[in-house]
Amino acid sequence: MAGEESARNKQVVLKNHVSAGLPKESDMEIKESSIQLKVPEATKDAILVKNLYLSCDPYMRNRMKKLEGSYVASFQIGSPISGYGVAKVVDSTHPGYKKGDLVWGMTGWEEYTLITAPEVLFKIQHTDVPLTYYTGLLGMAGMTAYAGFYEVCSPKKGEYVYVSAASGAVGQLVGQFAKLLGCYVVGSAGSKEKIDLLKNKFGFDAAFNYKEEPDLDAALKRCFPEGIDIYFENVGGKMLDAVLANMRVHGRIAACGMISQYNNEQLDAVHNLMYIVPKRVRMQGFIVSDFYHLYPKYLETIIPHIKEGKITYVEDKAEGLENAPAALIGLFTGRNVGKQLVVVSHD
Amino acid sequence: MAGEESARNKQVVLKNHVSAGLPKESDMEIKESSIQLKVPEATKDAILVKNLYLSCDPYMRNRMKKLEGSYVASFQIGSPISGYGVAKVVDSTHPGYKKGDLVWGMTGWEEYTLITAPEVLFKIQHTDVPLTYYTGLLGMAGMTAYAGFYEVCSPKKGEYVYVSAASGAVGQLVGQFAKLLGCYVVGSAGSKEKIDLLKNKFGFDAAFNYKEEPDLDAALKRCFPEGIDIYFENVGGKMLDAVLANMRVHGRIAACGMISQYNNEQLDAVHNLMYIVPKRVRMQGFIVSDFYHLYPKYLETIIPHIKEGKITYVEDKAEGLENAPAALIGLFTGRNVGKQLVVVSHD
Ligand SMILES: NC(=O)c1ccc[n+]([C@@H]2O[C@H](COP(=O)([O-])OP(=O)(O)OC[C@H]3O[C@@H](n4cnc5c(N)ncnc54)[C@H](OP(=O)(O)O)[C@@H]3O)[C@@H](O)[C@H]2O)c1
Ligand SMILES: NC(=O)c1ccc[n+]([C@@H]2O[C@H](COP(=O)([O-])OP(=O)(O)OC[C@H]3O[C@@H](n4cnc5c(N)ncnc54)[C@H](OP(=O)(O)O)[C@@H]3O)[C@@H](O)[C@H]2O)c1
Repeated sequence: MAGEESARNKQVVLKNHVSAGLPKESDMEIKESSIQLKVPEATKDAILVKNLYLSCDPYMRNRMKKLEGSYVASFQIGSPISGYGVAKVVDSTHPGYKKGDLVWGMTGWEEYTLITAPEVLFKIQHTDVPLTYYTGLLGMAGMTAYAGFYEVCSPKKGEYVYVSAASGAVGQLVGQFAKLLGCYVVGSAGSKEKIDLLKNKFGFDAAFNYKEEPDLDAALKRCFPEGIDIYFENVGGKMLDAVLANMRVHGRIAACGMISQYNNEQLDAVHNLMYIVPKRVRMQGFIVSDFYHLYPKYLETIIPHIKEGKITYVEDKAEGLENAPAALIGLFTGRNVGKQLVVVSHD
Repeated sequence: MAGEESARNKQVVLKNHVSAGLPKESDMEIKESSIQLKVPEATKDAILVKNLYLSCDPYMRNRMKKLEGSYVASFQIGSPISGYGVAKVVDSTHPGYKKGDLVWGMTGWEEYTLITAPEVLFKIQHTDVPLTYYTGLLGMAGMTAYAGFYEVCSPKKGEYVYVSAASGAVGQLVGQFAKLLGCYVVGSAGSKEKIDLLKNKFGFDAAFNYKEEPDLDAALKRCFPEGIDIYFENVGGKMLDAVLANMRVHGRIAACGMISQYNNEQLDAVHNLMYIVPKRVRMQGFIVSDFYHLYPKYLETIIPHIKEGKITYVEDKAEGLENAPAALIGLFTGRNVGKQLVVVSHD
C-alpha cells in the first residue's frame, strides 16, 4: 500500500456504557489514530468519506446504553460513536459514488469514515442551500417533522396544535409547518431565549416556558381553552400526562420521542391515559426511517419554501470534534438552541 | 284522561351519586309508582314502551358520578337510571312506530318508559334470534366488538391478538371475530369458569386468569413469545402497562374501555408508554356510537353467523328489576359470566 496518502483521524470514542442518568463528557474520549485515504483494494462497493458536519440526536442516548434485543444497536466501547452526518467522498469502489460527491446519512464521529454499505446514504443534489442543513432541516430531523406532522397527525386547517421541545431540531419545523397549513400553534421550551424564538422567529401563536409553570395542566388550559387537536410529542412524562387531560375529541398525538425519559432509570408514571377513550384520541408512535421514501417529495416542497423564506431554521454549531461530547450531552439539559450539530471540517 | 289503562311502574332509582369506590346496592333503590299506558295527548312524536330486557354496561358507573362538563350526563338523583334495553311499543304518537313494535336503545330502568325522541332507537327486524341478544350481541356490545375489531384494530389474518375482560359482553365477540379471521387469539379473565369458556366455548387459542398471575408481563411473554400485534383493551391500568412492553412493531391497541379504573379515586400509573415510539404502536380510543351507521352491515354479517353456529354468545340473566342493582355492581367484581342483562318481563 506504499504511496497512499494517510491522514490523522481524530475520533469520539465511547469509553463505557451509560445505563441511566445524564451522560458525562468523561463517558467519551477523543482518540487519534491514522487512516489511509483510500478504500482498501479488496473492499468492493465501499466509500471513504471525510466528515464535515455531525448531527447530535436524542436517540443516540439510547445507543450509549448496553442494550439487549433492542431495535437499535448499542455503541461499541472503544469504537467511534456513529450518527447522522454530512460527508464528502474521498475515494470510492462503489459505481454509484465518485470522489467529491456529497452525502448525508450514517457515518462515524471521526474525521474520516469507511462506509461499506453506502447505498443507504442520501446523495446531496441541492448545494445552493447551507450544507449544514443536511444534518437537520434537510436531513433526518426535517423528515421527522414532515412525516410526523403531515403523515401521522392528519392535520387540518384551523386545528389547535401543541408542540413540545418546540425550538429544537424537529419542533421548530413542526410549528412552522402547522402555521403554513393555517393551524393555531403553541409551543413549549425551556428558556426565555427559546420562547422568544418561538414567538418572534418561528411564528408560533403562543409559547410558554415549561420550567416556569408550576402546573402544566393550568398552562395548557390557558393556551388551549378549547383543548388540543394535535399534540406533537417530543418529551413524554409529566407533559404527556397533562396533555392527555386536555385533548379534544378525535385528537391525535404523534409520539415522536420522549426525551424527558431517556436518562431515567424508571419511566415516569402517566395517569391520564383513560381520557383517550371518551375523547377518541389516536396516539401513534412513529420512526422517521419508515418514511424515507417520501424524501424526494419532501425536498420538492421544502427547497422552494426555504428559498422563498417561508421556512427558517436555527442551528447551534459546536466547532470541532473535541466539543462533540458536550454538544451531545447538552441535548438533555436543553443547552442547544435550535438544531445541534458539530462542525468537523468546513470542506 | 278517564278510561285509560294505568299500571304499576317499578323503577330502579339512584339514591346518591357515587364518586369513587365500588357502588353498593344501597346507592340505588326500588321504587313503585304508576303510569298511564298511553302517550300523553299533547306529546307529539313519542312512544310509550314496556321494557323487556335491560343491559348492564360498565360505562354506567361513570354516570353514577356527579359529573361536570363530561361528554356523558350524570344520572339524576331520585330518577330512574337509564341505559340500553329491549322494549315493546305500547302506545305511539310517532308516525314511525306502532303498538307491538320491538326496539332497542336508550330506555329507563323501570317497567314502562315514555320515550320522547324515539328516532334514536333501533327497530328490531329480526325476531328469529333470541330477543335478549339485542342487549348485547345484536346491540351496543356487539357493535362495539365489531367496530372496535374491524374498524379500529386493522386486523390481518395470522396476527397475534390479545383480549382482556375476554369472556364479557364485548370480549367474547372480539375473540370469536379474530378467530374467524384466522388470528391467534389469547384472552384473560378473572375465574377458572371464564377461562374454560374462553378455551372451550369461544375457541380462543389460549387464556389465562389474570388474578392468579403474580407477574402480568411474564404471563404475556408466555402467551405471546413473539409479542402482540393487536390488543383489544377493556381493562386498563396494570394490564395495559404490561401489554405496552409486549407489543410488536406496528402493533395496534383499540382502547375500548378501562374498567379497572372506573371505581378508582386516582387513576393507575402507566409507565411503559415510551414503547409506542420504537414499536410504532397505534393506540386508538373509540366510542361505539361513532359507528352506528355500520349497524345494518353488522346485522347482515352477524345474523347468518349466528344461524350457522359460527358465533356463539353467553348471557348472564338477572331476573327482575329487584336484582338489577346487584347485577350492575357485579360487573365491577367480575360476578357476571358473559353478557349481563336484567329480565324485566318476558313479553
Ligand atoms: N421518531 C423519530 O423517528 C424521531 C426522529 C428524530 C427525533 N425524534 C425525537 O424528537 C424529539 C426532539 O428531537 P430533536 O432532535 O428535535 O431534539 P432537540 O429538540 O433539538 O433537542 C432536545 C431538546 O429537548 C428538550 N429537553 C431535554 N430534556 C428535557 C426534559 N427532561 N423535559 C423536556 N424537554 C427536554 C431541550 O429543550 P428545552 O430547552 O425545551 O427543554 C432540548 O433542547 C426527541 O424526543 C427525539 O428523540 C424522534
Ligand atoms: N368504547 C365503547 O364504546 C364501549 C362500549 C361498550 C363497552 N366498552 C368497554 O368495554 C369493556 C368491556 O365491557 P363489557 O360490556 O364487555 O363488560 P363485561 O366484560 O361483560 O363485564 C365487565 C368485566 O370486566 C372485568 N373486570 C371488572 N373489574 C375489573 C378489574 N378491576 N380488572 C380487570 N377486569 C375487571 C370482569 O371480568 P373478569 O372476571 O375477567 O375480571 C367483568 O366481568 C369495558 O371497559 C367497557 O367500559 C366500551
